[in-house]
Amino acid sequence: MALMQLTVIPLGTSSPSLGDYVADIQNRLEQENVNFELNDMGTIVQGETPELLALAARISELPFQKGVNRVVTHITIDDRRDKQVTIGTKIASVKARL
Amino acid sequence: MALMQLTVIPLGTSSPSLGDYVADIQNRLEQENVNFELNDMGTIVQGETPELLALAARISELPFQKGVNRVVTHITIDDRRDKQVTIGTKIASVKARL
Amino acid sequence: MALMQLTVIPLGTSSPSLGDYVADIQNRLEQENVNFELNDMGTIVQGETPELLALAARISELPFQKGVNRVVTHITIDDRRDKQVTIGTKIASVKARL
Amino acid sequence: MALMQLTVIPLGTSSPSLGDYVADIQNRLEQENVNFELNDMGTIVQGETPELLALAARISELPFQKGVNRVVTHITIDDRRDKQVTIGTKIASVKARL
Repeated sequence: MALMQLTVIPLGTSSPSLGDYVADIQNRLEQENVNFELNDMGTIVQGETPELLALAARISELPFQKGVNRVVTHITIDDRRDKQVTIGTKIASVKARL
Repeated sequence: MALMQLTVIPLGTSSPSLGDYVADIQNRLEQENVNFELNDMGTIVQGETPELLALAARISELPFQKGVNRVVTHITIDDRRDKQVTIGTKIASVKARL
Repeated sequence: MALMQLTVIPLGTSSPSLGDYVADIQNRLEQENVNFELNDMGTIVQGETPELLALAARISELPFQKGVNRVVTHITIDDRRDKQVTIGTKIASVKARL
Repeated sequence: MALMQLTVIPLGTSSPSLGDYVADIQNRLEQENVNFELNDMGTIVQGETPELLALAARISELPFQKGVNRVVTHITIDDRRDKQVTIGTKIASVKARL
């Protein structure tokens, strides 16, 4: 199981506010039926790496549908095979050490 | 005001678990007296860019004190000058659109 | 057309040197028959976003075959639809301005 | 010694082309008298981590001087203490294995 953090940045939007684009992504993730969590710098999604990256491809397409011509997408995958990692697991593991 | 996401990855640790290193970082951030929030993929800190990056330099030094010889640090800075951005502001702005 | 930068970081390797893992990736990219270029911080590959991310999934699997239990993968996709972008295009465009 | 990859993304520019901003950064790096190398996804700079991050703060300020109101900066630091790492070292080490 892996966690993915996904940040989609449309370029050449006349306003620096990206909230509408992020809301589109949240709506799409609801439809995709995955476990996800929004934070201030991106969205964390839980799943297997091939499915997560296929999802990232679909999500990064969304701003183009609004007329944007260039999108930069940052993705981090943390894939671990020796134990089950889900959203919240790593935070709990750190807090238990404090 | 800016937000920084910081992820510090020590390499060549014999175990793939990094929880002890992340706990060190959280303890240090408490001492540094900054507003921060841990998520499953890193820590978000609020401040001005030069201070945030100086803080990142101090934080990325911590694993070396435990005997690690190589550290990869990922930093994203989101610096906005047309309005005040603090931890939680962007999430609230997106949720208001859903 | 898009460019992807891909960096694959195996965790819990006893040595901090990752050259063997990076060499595996280069060999696999040769077999995959894609245009790519190694730099000191990752590998840049040229293609369409869905194919690039499917490739990233296959590449990030390689260290697990060597016994690694955790892999962190960083991916940046720069996807542009208003003009053709290939490896070397952006550098040339900047150099023409200097 | 560490290597830093730096990518500065101005938001809310009416054009999706960022070449002028990247050229500003290259010019500034020339003045800063550091070893650096442009690639298609960012600029790699060689130095010690605290100096590199202080440099990143100065560089990420440049687009604001052109009237941009929001800048996203991505930084990766690879800091190694068991051997000397400079621009080109890692590529050479991988190529020797192919």
